[in-house]
Amino acid sequence: MAEIKRAELSTVFSTPWFRITKKNYEIDKEPFYVLDTTDAVCIITTTSKQQILLVRQYRPAVDCETLELPSGHVQDNETPEETAKRELLEETGYKADSIELLGNIFPNTTRLGYKLWCFFAPKAIKVKEPEPDEINNLVFCNPSNLSSFIKNGKIKNALDIAAIFLAMQNDKIRTRASS
Amino acid sequence: MAEIKRAELSTVFSTPWFRITKKNYEIDKEPFYVLDTTDAVCIITTTSKQQILLVRQYRPAVDCETLELPSGHVQDNETPEETAKRELLEETGYKADSIELLGNIFPNTTRLGYKLWCFFAPKAIKVKEPEPDEINNLVFCNPSNLSSFIKNGKIKNALDIAAIFLAMQNDKIRTRASS
Repeated sequence: MAEIKRAELSTVFSTPWFRITKKNYEIDKEPFYVLDTTDAVCIITTTSKQQILLVRQYRPAVDCETLELPSGHVQDNETPEETAKRELLEETGYKADSIELLGNIFPNTTRLGYKLWCFFAPKAIKVKEPEPDEINNLVFCNPSNLSSFIKNGKIKNALDIAAIFLAMQNDKIRTRASS
Repeated sequence: MAEIKRAELSTVFSTPWFRITKKNYEIDKEPFYVLDTTDAVCIITTTSKQQILLVRQYRPAVDCETLELPSGHVQDNETPEETAKRELLEETGYKADSIELLGNIFPNTTRLGYKLWCFFAPKAIKVKEPEPDEINNLVFCNPSNLSSFIKNGKIKNALDIAAIFLAMQNDKIRTRASS
């Protein structure tokens, strides 16, 4: 692999949720701009009835309602695994005794500077109601239906589709990747 | 599906490659910030020898070298299919007679406002050298090895993994999603 290239970094725009970092690799060349924030997690959870937990929510970035895996960003002093447990509980009210890393990947190598940690949380049980401001609708899905949810556009977040691939690859769920 | 919510939009930061749009849904609530640009495409290409074309390149956003599908953003007056053909030719020097849409998905429903169009380009043939400033290394990969490339972290862009899932789902390539 190539070595890390040295760049001069500066924050050129920021919000409470992310910042835009300008990277100058060479003085006489165009700078590169990257959206930076803390790492993200997403969680594939199965219940005792072998159903996958999905959340329906309005997404301002794409101005529509989507069906997605529980997800979120790492907060101060959290490990990605702790974030996954917290987000799962907040968004669904479910908790799993054990949680397993499926892999960490890049959500977007063109423009995003953080990682995505994909987790699998089996045999989750309901311990409380989901937080009302976190989630509109909890949806239960048979693993075998995930593929058709992707095919018919119900699940359309690329990051979730990548996480589902990792879960299949790790033999955690079975769905039909070929029709 | 929920209706589109009305927001007051303003561009609060911009570069030649993207802009940050501020969305105000309600006066007394926190605004939402989204990275907007033209739609993106990525292309799964097979050669006459049934090999997949990958490109090795240094990615400033994640400060490392990656192995990825050819990809890019739609330019003025292009359709996503035209972008896919142009990017394939520029990055690899290959051309396919026909190109097929596998699906369009969202690259990131949390923060990115554009779509990702995933294409399949079978039986591509080499018609010229890849452009030197576009690509460092062209890599040929057996479809059956894509899964191990993902497992061992050689392919680590979530968008590519999602596109590979769509290609498998559409019976265009065969790789092992379960180990």
